[in-house]
Amino acid sequence: MISFKNDYNELAHPVVLQKLLDAQGIQFNGYGLDVASNQAKSLISKHISIPVDIHFLIGGTNANKTIINHVLRPYEAVIATDIGHIQVHETGAIEANGNKILLVSPKDGKLTPVQVQEIVETHADEHMVIPKMVYISNTTEIGSIYSKSELEALYKKTKELGLWFFIDGARLGAAIVADPTLSLDIIASLCDVFYIGGTKNGAMFGEAAVITNPKIQENFRHSIKRNGGLLAKGFVTGLQFEALFENDCYFTCAKNAIESANYLKQGLHNLHIRFFYESMTNQQFIYLPNETIDKLAKEYAFEIWIKGNQESVIRLVTSWATKPEHIDYLLKSLQD
Amino acid sequence: MISFKNDYNELAHPVVLQKLLDAQGIQFNGYGLDVASNQAKSLISKHISIPVDIHFLIGGTNANKTIINHVLRPYEAVIATDIGHIQVHETGAIEANGNKILLVSPKDGKLTPVQVQEIVETHADEHMVIPKMVYISNTTEIGSIYSKSELEALYKKTKELGLWFFIDGARLGAAIVADPTLSLDIIASLCDVFYIGGTKNGAMFGEAAVITNPKIQENFRHSIKRNGGLLAKGFVTGLQFEALFENDCYFTCAKNAIESANYLKQGLHNLHIRFFYESMTNQQFIYLPNETIDKLAKEYAFEIWIKGNQESVIRLVTSWATKPEHIDYLLKSLQD
Amino acid sequence: MISFKNDYNELAHPVVLQKLLDAQGIQFNGYGLDVASNQAKSLISKHISIPVDIHFLIGGTNANKTIINHVLRPYEAVIATDIGHIQVHETGAIEANGNKILLVSPKDGKLTPVQVQEIVETHADEHMVIPKMVYISNTTEIGSIYSKSELEALYKKTKELGLWFFIDGARLGAAIVADPTLSLDIIASLCDVFYIGGTKNGAMFGEAAVITNPKIQENFRHSIKRNGGLLAKGFVTGLQFEALFENDCYFTCAKNAIESANYLKQGLHNLHIRFFYESMTNQQFIYLPNETIDKLAKEYAFEIWIKGNQESVIRLVTSWATKPEHIDYLLKSLQD
Amino acid sequence: MISFKNDYNELAHPVVLQKLLDAQGIQFNGYGLDVASNQAKSLISKHISIPVDIHFLIGGTNANKTIINHVLRPYEAVIATDIGHIQVHETGAIEANGNKILLVSPKDGKLTPVQVQEIVETHADEHMVIPKMVYISNTTEIGSIYSKSELEALYKKTKELGLWFFIDGARLGAAIVADPTLSLDIIASLCDVFYIGGTKNGAMFGEAAVITNPKIQENFRHSIKRNGGLLAKGFVTGLQFEALFENDCYFTCAKNAIESANYLKQGLHNLHIRFFYESMTNQQFIYLPNETIDKLAKEYAFEIWIKGNQESVIRLVTSWATKPEHIDYLLKSLQD
Repeated sequence: MISFKNDYNELAHPVVLQKLLDAQGIQFNGYGLDVASNQAKSLISKHISIPVDIHFLIGGTNANKTIINHVLRPYEAVIATDIGHIQVHETGAIEANGNKILLVSPKDGKLTPVQVQEIVETHADEHMVIPKMVYISNTTEIGSIYSKSELEALYKKTKELGLWFFIDGARLGAAIVADPTLSLDIIASLCDVFYIGGTKNGAMFGEAAVITNPKIQENFRHSIKRNGGLLAKGFVTGLQFEALFENDCYFTCAKNAIESANYLKQGLHNLHIRFFYESMTNQQFIYLPNETIDKLAKEYAFEIWIKGNQESVIRLVTSWATKPEHIDYLLKSLQD
Repeated sequence: MISFKNDYNELAHPVVLQKLLDAQGIQFNGYGLDVASNQAKSLISKHISIPVDIHFLIGGTNANKTIINHVLRPYEAVIATDIGHIQVHETGAIEANGNKILLVSPKDGKLTPVQVQEIVETHADEHMVIPKMVYISNTTEIGSIYSKSELEALYKKTKELGLWFFIDGARLGAAIVADPTLSLDIIASLCDVFYIGGTKNGAMFGEAAVITNPKIQENFRHSIKRNGGLLAKGFVTGLQFEALFENDCYFTCAKNAIESANYLKQGLHNLHIRFFYESMTNQQFIYLPNETIDKLAKEYAFEIWIKGNQESVIRLVTSWATKPEHIDYLLKSLQD
Repeated sequence: MISFKNDYNELAHPVVLQKLLDAQGIQFNGYGLDVASNQAKSLISKHISIPVDIHFLIGGTNANKTIINHVLRPYEAVIATDIGHIQVHETGAIEANGNKILLVSPKDGKLTPVQVQEIVETHADEHMVIPKMVYISNTTEIGSIYSKSELEALYKKTKELGLWFFIDGARLGAAIVADPTLSLDIIASLCDVFYIGGTKNGAMFGEAAVITNPKIQENFRHSIKRNGGLLAKGFVTGLQFEALFENDCYFTCAKNAIESANYLKQGLHNLHIRFFYESMTNQQFIYLPNETIDKLAKEYAFEIWIKGNQESVIRLVTSWATKPEHIDYLLKSLQD
Repeated sequence: MISFKNDYNELAHPVVLQKLLDAQGIQFNGYGLDVASNQAKSLISKHISIPVDIHFLIGGTNANKTIINHVLRPYEAVIATDIGHIQVHETGAIEANGNKILLVSPKDGKLTPVQVQEIVETHADEHMVIPKMVYISNTTEIGSIYSKSELEALYKKTKELGLWFFIDGARLGAAIVADPTLSLDIIASLCDVFYIGGTKNGAMFGEAAVITNPKIQENFRHSIKRNGGLLAKGFVTGLQFEALFENDCYFTCAKNAIESANYLKQGLHNLHIRFFYESMTNQQFIYLPNETIDKLAKEYAFEIWIKGNQESVIRLVTSWATKPEHIDYLLKSLQD
């Protein structure tokens, strides 16, 4: 059984594991106030030309609920697409902290400055929440990418309207590698806070939150603790990000995911398989007859995205760990 | 510099690391629905003679806020001591979910059935919350232990009053090893829910929540997710607990912590150093002149528990990783 | 200036005021445990053939947040339309208690059993909230009515799916008077909890929550208090509902609102004014040229519902206090 | 049956009712944006020499939860005494919004600057909430008074430590009348926010929140709405405060409560009845044999404050509505 189910099915990139092994026997300070975390922050900072605050968090949902609650006042709300991870797949984690999400319908998984403007204009009095933050994922939940110019437009709009701009980077590596207009520095310059996803790009777990706007940096560690995300052995996360940002392993991981996806995509095109959505990143969505899906499921793990009567859409995900032969097997099976 | 600051300053017990290494290259299901997690649950279950639900959580604060919020209705409250971890050291994580804590003053760090009864009796109408849960830590925040008979008395009282009984086991290994009346099976039989702390006893992170009362088992995974504690790579926690419960490594770890503490204690007694509190477990509290503390701090890391003008109380913590020579050095330094 | 802005612009129906005057000098028990509240409950109960619990609340938003939070577990959610009062006009009051709202697009302001089914089917695992309640307003936010058969279908569907069914009755009087298939008894038999709106139908303030399902009756007074809705002088609300339900004043009030609306509607039709939506109740929505609106606004108060470039939609609301001559004036002004 | 149970057992002072009667037939704007509310604010402002924001709220618990949540960030906490109303008698309403209360033991019902200092000093890192507000009630929950100099000391301390100072004035009228060092202007100059309690001093319901610190004035109406306290007919509260602050009726009400209490106190002293606490305000606490209490309870309503085996403490409350003959009856009954 080969899994194309997700990008978090294998333990960790070998350099990450090696870094942990090397740390065995060393005594670290607790709660992320350790040399490894500091070193990791320093390595990440080198990619960013403005001063930023960096904090290591344990996972995506935890990062989202912590950041949103840290920034918003109770009567303020966050704007997201109706397929946004915070809206659909976090079991009300945002609302658990009292924060409301305002929804817009995305195009290609993305929201636009016009939509942000409309939401703000239609929330005019004290009977409604005040829209105060825009949340996007890059790559999006369906694998599309906000390019540099799209981010610029959104960032400009948020500043014009006095909103915070937050980029969920659970799959940020994939976005940066797939879109040459992007880089960590560009991301950092076009938002108030974002995070660099480790879980889905080579780490065992962990996201690196980068707060670029000094106005929302204060007391962030209090918010992490309150949300149950301050690991006693914070150095475990620090060590992982140290490994990922030495020798740009983070981007090597993402590169393998994207190249694997492109290789897979090419192969699927060659087989004349229909795409549900032309994704440029490591999530590919294709139509297959249900019969084919049933057969395939005996050898491969994947997610059924949209279930139909005759045919369905399945999602195939590649990662830092995907090997060309995995894709070859899959394409071979599909051919048969 | 040798650290007696805490029991979470080293990476992980070697068998835990080895288990991770062995898992490299394997593809696991996500979110804790994997073979390693299942195997770990099975190993833990062997210590417990009643059917239970087991879930792996990421850390103590997260476990506490998740469990308490899962069980209580909004207008119900949890009873704890005024030194309780949930009250003092979680930055309002319990209240973040809307849950109120009702306080009693502990004796030797512990609360009593009489105090529980009093709290319930004084909360009689709808202008007050309904006390509905008792929270204790075993070992307590100051290293004392609830013995089997104390747990029996508390459990009986909670059942008599219709309360849930929740045991925070962040240092449960230490309690079980130090007190021969205790075992995992006895703990399980005397509460509704508890957890087995991994972070402070050999794991990189992770706590194993054990829900013994079927009435509060339903939908617990929803509560984990909502509280941001459902790791995508849940198998990382599963693998660690698998390692800890193969060959009873968990108890070996705790045994080293307790034996080291006893060895330290004996040495301190020999030096006629005054104890702030006669702890039986791996947290020792002693008085030292401030001058001595300043000198000691150059070579050893530890926490100043209570700061005084002339002398202060410091806390010395041993762990699975403490070596006899560490203690010998420390005693030698103190003698000098 | 005559106001068609809302149905809560005048103090209270004269019998309500008289009841307060008659109570002057009497000493009542606090917090709604008084003879007037009991008498009011008894009068309301006479309209309902099943045993119910009745509680007096202070207003609509408070009632909604209290009822929803009382009933749902943290990881459960309430289904509403995207124009639902709880979604749009309560400044996040529902989310303030940690409860998430799941949205469907209404037809004529109403949601359907099919939509409920779809929401439930698409929320299948622990990464998503569990839909557990359906919230509707009757009349709806745009003045449409759920008929008896529509309520039957929704109620049946919620029971089939194990959901609670909650009817916001801020304008319930208008619904019952305008739709002959409805009555308080029928409403009570087709939901788990609803409330009878006083604020918009003759009272100074206050809503009577009626909990028909015994499973959600327990400790409701705790939830009221926790949500800041337990008035010390609860008898003030009790007295008002006593007045409204003696001699069916509640329905007399609603009748005046509906008859006034019908009279207005007829007059508007005679003037060939276009309707935005054919409402059967006391909210009427019409198109007018912006120029006309500007002139009208000098003599009449009303809300601009949808602002357009050339013409806009305005809302005209009638109430228990509307007099025929008010409508005659308005129609006359429109004719001119 | 005569009630000394509370100061909210009668409808309202006659001038309040008359004001409502006079408003019958007038059309007001909704949600407190009306002429009566404006006039009431203007009348209150005349007592205060600095510019302030005034908002009318529906009751004490609602006011407390709204103000505290409006001002605090999630990880900040409010300091109160362990008999504080927000701690004991609000069913977790403060925690419902995620706010934590830090407790100190009061002397004569009051907290001191030293206690505030201690709390702040012991909350030093991100594992603990940040104390950021001091909450007191004046009069306190046991009828004692913070004098001008006590308020000065507390206010100075809060400013020194960067805390907000909030005064719950549910019985502020009684404090001002009983203590000649106090006035509305002095209260306003010595805190960041307070409220003038209407419910317990002549109104049917309602508290007037006065925000003196401009830093916490913004968007307060959003917080009111979110907490379910924005009455559609806000003019009903406005009218009541207009009545109470025309001709100083508010202080006349409080004067009657205090004078009645003094008259009662003198009479009790004459009967050599022991006082539990020497209150200067309208709550008096006395010891009585249980047998006497049982007899008394047949003719008078009052609260048993502390239940003992032989004797108990009862609370006797006077109000704006108490008549001398009520007290004469009671004293006569006690004599017998």
